[in-house]
Amino acid sequence: MNILEIIAKKRDGEKLSKEEIDFFVKNYTNGVVTDYQAAALVMAIYIQGMDYEETTNLTLAMAKSGEVLDLSELGMVVDKHSTGGIGDKITLILMPIIAAIGIPAAKMSGRGLGFTGGTIDKLESIPGYNTSISIEKFINNVKNIGISLMGQTLNLAPADKKLYALRDTISCVESIPLIASSIMSKKIAAGAEKICLEVTVGSGAFMKNVEDATKLSETMIGIGKLANKETICVLTNMNEPIGYSIGNSLEVIEAVEALKGNMKDDVKAIILELGSYMIKLAGKGENIEENKKLILEKINNGEALAKFKELVQNQGGDVSYIEDTSKFEHAKYIIPVVSNKSGYVKTMNNEKIGYISCNLGAGRMKKDDEINNKVGIIIEKKIGDKIEVGDILGYIYADDENIGNKAVTDLIECYELSNEFVEKQKHILGIIK
Amino acid sequence: MNILEIIAKKRDGEKLSKEEIDFFVKNYTNGVVTDYQAAALVMAIYIQGMDYEETTNLTLAMAKSGEVLDLSELGMVVDKHSTGGIGDKITLILMPIIAAIGIPAAKMSGRGLGFTGGTIDKLESIPGYNTSISIEKFINNVKNIGISLMGQTLNLAPADKKLYALRDTISCVESIPLIASSIMSKKIAAGAEKICLEVTVGSGAFMKNVEDATKLSETMIGIGKLANKETICVLTNMNEPIGYSIGNSLEVIEAVEALKGNMKDDVKAIILELGSYMIKLAGKGENIEENKKLILEKINNGEALAKFKELVQNQGGDVSYIEDTSKFEHAKYIIPVVSNKSGYVKTMNNEKIGYISCNLGAGRMKKDDEINNKVGIIIEKKIGDKIEVGDILGYIYADDENIGNKAVTDLIECYELSNEFVEKQKHILGIIK
Repeated sequence: MNILEIIAKKRDGEKLSKEEIDFFVKNYTNGVVTDYQAAALVMAIYIQGMDYEETTNLTLAMAKSGEVLDLSELGMVVDKHSTGGIGDKITLILMPIIAAIGIPAAKMSGRGLGFTGGTIDKLESIPGYNTSISIEKFINNVKNIGISLMGQTLNLAPADKKLYALRDTISCVESIPLIASSIMSKKIAAGAEKICLEVTVGSGAFMKNVEDATKLSETMIGIGKLANKETICVLTNMNEPIGYSIGNSLEVIEAVEALKGNMKDDVKAIILELGSYMIKLAGKGENIEENKKLILEKINNGEALAKFKELVQNQGGDVSYIEDTSKFEHAKYIIPVVSNKSGYVKTMNNEKIGYISCNLGAGRMKKDDEINNKVGIIIEKKIGDKIEVGDILGYIYADDENIGNKAVTDLIECYELSNEFVEKQKHILGIIK
Repeated sequence: MNILEIIAKKRDGEKLSKEEIDFFVKNYTNGVVTDYQAAALVMAIYIQGMDYEETTNLTLAMAKSGEVLDLSELGMVVDKHSTGGIGDKITLILMPIIAAIGIPAAKMSGRGLGFTGGTIDKLESIPGYNTSISIEKFINNVKNIGISLMGQTLNLAPADKKLYALRDTISCVESIPLIASSIMSKKIAAGAEKICLEVTVGSGAFMKNVEDATKLSETMIGIGKLANKETICVLTNMNEPIGYSIGNSLEVIEAVEALKGNMKDDVKAIILELGSYMIKLAGKGENIEENKKLILEKINNGEALAKFKELVQNQGGDVSYIEDTSKFEHAKYIIPVVSNKSGYVKTMNNEKIGYISCNLGAGRMKKDDEINNKVGIIIEKKIGDKIEVGDILGYIYADDENIGNKAVTDLIECYELSNEFVEKQKHILGIIK
């Protein structure tokens, strides 16, 4: 077996065997297969595709390319993952709810690259919160209080890390087998027994339509089946930001409000849908409607918020910020974004909104960029809202006045208005299981 | 414009513009575009293809990526090139004939990589022959005696050199637009006004069948037309070696014999066909049959051999070796290869014969390998020949007894015999113009 034969097979549209995929992943991880050979193979995979079996074999090979976490001592751990969105604070809200219900909430999250920060960056905007604890501490935390959220400190799926970075530089990101194997390899290495995936669909997501998102979901569910990790996918709308805030401490504040019961419709819909399927996966409730009621109960009786505070305290964070979110330091400039037109919001350029937030300092363009926790965007108007001239579309939170003013102009351009009535967006676009 | 957009376009099967191809070639040559980005693009080109216009633009961009030779002061120079074969000594025989007819014979040749040596390696087996003369000397030689054969000392088409080496390591060799642009970029940079190409077809060639060879020929002719370099392709059979010798000095000896009129049928057919089209391209004779007669005349009256001697002397070679080829030093071991079976030769594994010769030391596996001029193979039996047990299939010329004995066994395995009558091979498979 050699890499030239493997490349040639996929180039000609043939199916790769498990041995060939293992050979590639192993030798790419250790550097025997070069980046240019991997690039040729990845392009061939992009164009010629891979079937379920190949995609599963690629996933498992990447999952095994580094450390694999074993969480079995914690019982039935259900992992949650999103394929990415603008203003995505769902993990911050959902995991404390799950823990309050008695399901072990052990989750490793990544830092963000591009757009806004990742869950780990958001947690770090709480003074003192330590995201890089040891694995022993992580597991002990879950044993003691039922929840721990930490950064990805282990060398999980290094082959995926290498391949993901490569794909970015050779225009091979939007491939269903490559996206599916990338996500699932990390989830499998992260040790959960069951997996609940939020597959985002729309202008701000990898998947631009429900058809592709369904295909991606079916692929990941198929991989989960073969890897003995039951997987359910919830398709959510990413044509507009999630909730009303984008930016690290701004999103923590929204998460705290949500845990108090003050949720925007879209956040509520996603929390209830993802959460009730996580409960089902954990074997804690077969009836989805009952599960939704249970989630609302845990919010209304304060247990979910209490669990979040417990989490923050347990990982060294200053709980007084959660008790009084006005303690979070504000950005220097809070600039209202005023509409100069009237009409119904027809579309929002969600990807561009992500870039605006990133430009303000809330996200990273490069790996080593530092994140500014205070900056970001508050969104007041979303698709279907009626707008008059002079209405406030949102607020820019900036530490630099020029950058802030530029963001105002840019945000106005993200809104496309229509004279005709526009329906509000549906939040949940499907459940694939 | 950026490389990611260019890669994505070709990935999706779209046509690249001249500007995009120029951008890629320029930035790949200077190192701004990385090898892995080029690998992804080359794989996309391999799978999605390129039309005539794209292929021509790629050819011209590569031709212009380095020095471009100007031979216009020599008059109508016709270049000759072969897509590669086993035992290919055609240039050594044909160019002196062309010069004897009065057509300027100015040709730069490459060294071989894999299989046997290139034309330059063969010439260097003549003691004293200098292949690395200056360009001024090269042009002056042609002015003075009508012929010069030298090595490729200029930095011709460096983009092609880089891309060719890359293609070899990513299983992207056998692509018609890539082969066509590679050959034609070097020919255009080498400065001839018209081009006669020998496109080899069969087990020992890139093109395995006439259909693909025709497609390749049409592509190169199309490029030639757009580049204002009239091009004609002669399709020749590469299911068996050309002539009877493989190896550097062995092939020089065969070439000298051919110039004396002692030619195998296949060598004669190729010389007459290629030569008469070169004469036609040079404007020295419209009638192909008349041209063939002229070639035979130049052989029979000794002028062609005299021109070869003049060439050798003029470039510092010891002419006494040409006058008496028994002066060439022999390999230590000349081992007969005896058939242990009877029947008609049905197929010969021509590619493997090339590797055997290379293993003996006649070719290079790596760029810096040294070539042994004395070793090689003499072929006595070819496709269609009837063989009895005990007949000699050929001779191995080896300097190492073990390697020689291994080559004997290997060569026997290259012959597939049949009990039924087998036709001899056709030598010329088509003319495309």
